[in-house]
Amino acid sequence: MKMEHLVGLRFRERPADCVVDSHALMVRGGYSRQVMNGVFSAFPPLVRVLRKIEQILREEMDALGGQEVQLPVVMPASLWQASGRYDSIGPELVRFKDRGGNDLVLGMTHEEAAVQLVREYGRSYTRYPFMIYQIQTKFRDEARPRAGLIRVREFTMKDAYSFHTSQADLDAFYEDCRRAYQRIFARVGLPQVVAVASDAGMMGGRVSHEFMLLTDIGEDTIAICPHCGYRANLEAAECRLPAVPRGADAPQAEVATPGVHTIEELCRFLPCDPADTCKAVAYRREDDGRLVLLFLRGDLDVNETKLTRFLQCGVRPAVLEEDCGLYPGSIGPVGLPPRPDRVLLFDRSLAGRSGLVCGANRPGYHLVGLDMNRDLPSAEYRDFAKAAPGGLCPCCGRPGLTLRRGIEVGNIFQLGTKYTDSMGMTYLDRDGQTRFPLMGCYGIGVGRLAAAICEAHHDEHGPVWPLTVAPWQVQLCAVRADDPEVRRCADALYDELQRRGVEVLYDDRRVSPGVMFADADLIGAPFRLVVSPRNLRQDCVELTARDGSVSRTLPRATAADALCGALAEAQA
Amino acid sequence: MKMEHLVGLRFRERPADCVVDSHALMVRGGYSRQVMNGVFSAFPPLVRVLRKIEQILREEMDALGGQEVQLPVVMPASLWQASGRYDSIGPELVRFKDRGGNDLVLGMTHEEAAVQLVREYGRSYTRYPFMIYQIQTKFRDEARPRAGLIRVREFTMKDAYSFHTSQADLDAFYEDCRRAYQRIFARVGLPQVVAVASDAGMMGGRVSHEFMLLTDIGEDTIAICPHCGYRANLEAAECRLPAVPRGADAPQAEVATPGVHTIEELCRFLPCDPADTCKAVAYRREDDGRLVLLFLRGDLDVNETKLTRFLQCGVRPAVLEEDCGLYPGSIGPVGLPPRPDRVLLFDRSLAGRSGLVCGANRPGYHLVGLDMNRDLPSAEYRDFAKAAPGGLCPCCGRPGLTLRRGIEVGNIFQLGTKYTDSMGMTYLDRDGQTRFPLMGCYGIGVGRLAAAICEAHHDEHGPVWPLTVAPWQVQLCAVRADDPEVRRCADALYDELQRRGVEVLYDDRRVSPGVMFADADLIGAPFRLVVSPRNLRQDCVELTARDGSVSRTLPRATAADALCGALAEAQA
Repeated sequence: MKMEHLVGLRFRERPADCVVDSHALMVRGGYSRQVMNGVFSAFPPLVRVLRKIEQILREEMDALGGQEVQLPVVMPASLWQASGRYDSIGPELVRFKDRGGNDLVLGMTHEEAAVQLVREYGRSYTRYPFMIYQIQTKFRDEARPRAGLIRVREFTMKDAYSFHTSQADLDAFYEDCRRAYQRIFARVGLPQVVAVASDAGMMGGRVSHEFMLLTDIGEDTIAICPHCGYRANLEAAECRLPAVPRGADAPQAEVATPGVHTIEELCRFLPCDPADTCKAVAYRREDDGRLVLLFLRGDLDVNETKLTRFLQCGVRPAVLEEDCGLYPGSIGPVGLPPRPDRVLLFDRSLAGRSGLVCGANRPGYHLVGLDMNRDLPSAEYRDFAKAAPGGLCPCCGRPGLTLRRGIEVGNIFQLGTKYTDSMGMTYLDRDGQTRFPLMGCYGIGVGRLAAAICEAHHDEHGPVWPLTVAPWQVQLCAVRADDPEVRRCADALYDELQRRGVEVLYDDRRVSPGVMFADADLIGAPFRLVVSPRNLRQDCVELTARDGSVSRTLPRATAADALCGALAEAQA
Repeated sequence: MKMEHLVGLRFRERPADCVVDSHALMVRGGYSRQVMNGVFSAFPPLVRVLRKIEQILREEMDALGGQEVQLPVVMPASLWQASGRYDSIGPELVRFKDRGGNDLVLGMTHEEAAVQLVREYGRSYTRYPFMIYQIQTKFRDEARPRAGLIRVREFTMKDAYSFHTSQADLDAFYEDCRRAYQRIFARVGLPQVVAVASDAGMMGGRVSHEFMLLTDIGEDTIAICPHCGYRANLEAAECRLPAVPRGADAPQAEVATPGVHTIEELCRFLPCDPADTCKAVAYRREDDGRLVLLFLRGDLDVNETKLTRFLQCGVRPAVLEEDCGLYPGSIGPVGLPPRPDRVLLFDRSLAGRSGLVCGANRPGYHLVGLDMNRDLPSAEYRDFAKAAPGGLCPCCGRPGLTLRRGIEVGNIFQLGTKYTDSMGMTYLDRDGQTRFPLMGCYGIGVGRLAAAICEAHHDEHGPVWPLTVAPWQVQLCAVRADDPEVRRCADALYDELQRRGVEVLYDDRRVSPGVMFADADLIGAPFRLVVSPRNLRQDCVELTARDGSVSRTLPRATAADALCGALAEAQA
């Protein structure tokens, strides 16, 4: 391929609307172009990166015994009604009608279609286990697409679905798949990706992991224990706190707190420690609109994923009406009459605590001396709080939990029988019994992975693509291609490298070396060969690696050999 | 790959709802499964065929200098409004809204997105010509999906878009692309595909060709001249008729024709020849509902594509109201008062004719002696009729035009500046002038091509895949795999063939030879190796070709060599 023909433009200025580096470089380097919010077209260099990632995905899925299938982008609503997700998923599932008035959806994931495809095949236990996968376009109507290709609405995904007749078999395959994922990330140049326990969310199921590239620009937060290696998405991380000794028994008393509305103001006013307060957070259930009052320790935040999971329905922050008998800033758990349109919940951080400060349910007043056991003997406690930095590890119990940001580059789920049961997929077991197979599902977004690789491997000048996914292996730069000797040498190298199967991008444009090298930096090929009048005077060409690890002059006659050697070494 | 693990079921019975053979075999052979009307999932054997076709498409596009890009499935309506197609295309374009209320469409073709991608790149004449292509999912909400994968709603398509600065350059590239298409069809096993002139339809533009596999199950009709090689889609074929000598001047006269409503009844009643009648066909314009009365020779049919193109709007058959002054079966061109809500059109077949019979615009009466020149001196004549078998070739003028059915497996269009002009894509020419580039577009539906190959290459037992697109090159059948000697020999052959890079599907299931061979016929691998106790007694295995061209016993020790030789020979 000649650079002069490469469709797309490259430029130096960082676009103002790019928040993360990979996005800026994808735009500056002629990799992608936005078509609308969260939807992109890809230029040839990005397509080449995507194809290489896809090939690695295929090889690893095939190695697991996976079989490639193709499921539709557009599906009938009936398929999603059967699983119950047509109603349970929000507006991120695009729903529309065809010309005949039939309800359709755009696939954002394909559990239903996978079950529909293999329902008949899977009727006998003898056919298990098996796994199918596809690499296909999906659409998820994200509320807030961001960061270029990191969070988009239309994306290409490798999604795989496995089917099993026992939990032990699913467990074993799930573990194989986890290892395959680690191999995939290592092969594309991200060996640092870590698997973290996650919340299964809309997928259902019990066990699930996300694969995270830890980076400050990530939008997920991961709780990590520095002692035992525990790692979990903050959404799923259990919040464990050091036990607090019971204070002296103190009587409840109302104190005037004029103008105090927040925990911060309260602690300054009294004064007291936020960890010794009980705060209220008000939500409304999205299904029936009932009010949910969640009480937790004043220094903690609500983990809405846990709350949603417990309530089995979405929630939104509540706006309290004037006449509801609740006074924002002064809501407390004591003396709230039970009402059918109101749910009270208590976080574990309050269990057994005494000497707490809470709202008095009277504007401008708080209660001190709240004793949970004494004053609210029937309260039930559950884990609704976000794990906090420095907290106890839910696994080894030692303190010092840290929080890191990360990009989710893959996920794996044990789905159990959620889909096979709801969609009526059964098999006849060895003993003549009809059973529902267990499922696992395994996803990797191809475009997001490309962006994550770029995020992890770049400098200010451009991406530094790992050899396995680079759009081209080598960029051949003919500096002063109008010099006949340069032209002759560079053309010959181009021909020879192509003949030897090397992927070369050949730049013989009449541009300045500055432009040529800046463009080469944006293309990010691992190796660069420079032919210039100065080098040719020594009968040499120059070989550099994009990551700075190689910089040598090579005798012209053996340059192709040396480059092929360097490639072989890098691939080893 | 082992047959026992292959996901999907195979069976003998032809499904009742399959009209064409390829559809029946795709269902019987475990290739595809319907998800809803016109939407299918693909099992592994079909995915493997599709991938091979895609690879051939990539190679041929790359050889033309094409660069692979990726354009979105979901696009903003604004892109299609810019080109005007948002309004001009009917319900086959799926329109819907996202969660933010923005109007979106599902891509059925990607001219707009292609222009949006390269608009900035193409600002200088120095960058031309160039061609981009993608292989991507599309959705077209067909009113009548049919014939399995032949006419579907969701499909994968290779679509390419070229950009040029002169008509001569577009012409030359278009011709290169036409030749590349013939190479593609030859490589996938359909050298018999012919290019026919076509109507550009909703794509716009001047010159276009469709590539047709001639077969009785095709839904297109192609006019072919046996003398000069002229070929055109019937939609686009000019209707040329032998000149008819003027008859003697005869006076107009009204004759009673009681109970006569059709041309057939009229010719029997009078009697006369259909070619000597003038019939009326009534349509309504879809835009303003005006009545269109089209007069043409009684033995010809209306070509609605030509009519639509002339009117620049769609038409539907008109239902005439009781009081409109027109009497179905007796409508004629004489004495119809001009009305603003009525358009009269005349087909060329009537030009200069005399002695015709036509409706008298009075129920139960016809006129004889109609003389077009005398009675309708201001009529203008255009070509609105379908070319008829036996007619004159529009190219060489000789009689004997024949009509054949065909499946459209590809198309190429010269689009001119339709999209660049409407979407404001310009370049600065050598002389400093701002101009609109010319475009061509080039499509091949991957799934339809697979079905067409199956349609052209099958017998009653299954597909007979050409080697270049076969899901596997070889099916290895171990008859009586419970026999240790059979097991040993077949396992060794499987290992050796895999090691040598042969794509083998290995059937070592404990099923009867009948089931095994029936399944192998449905998989349709070009070669079959059979290891059985009977053959092994002679220390031999059996090699057959699916198309019957090879049937030999091979010494066991050299069987792999012989097979690899046969493969190499077939690939040569």
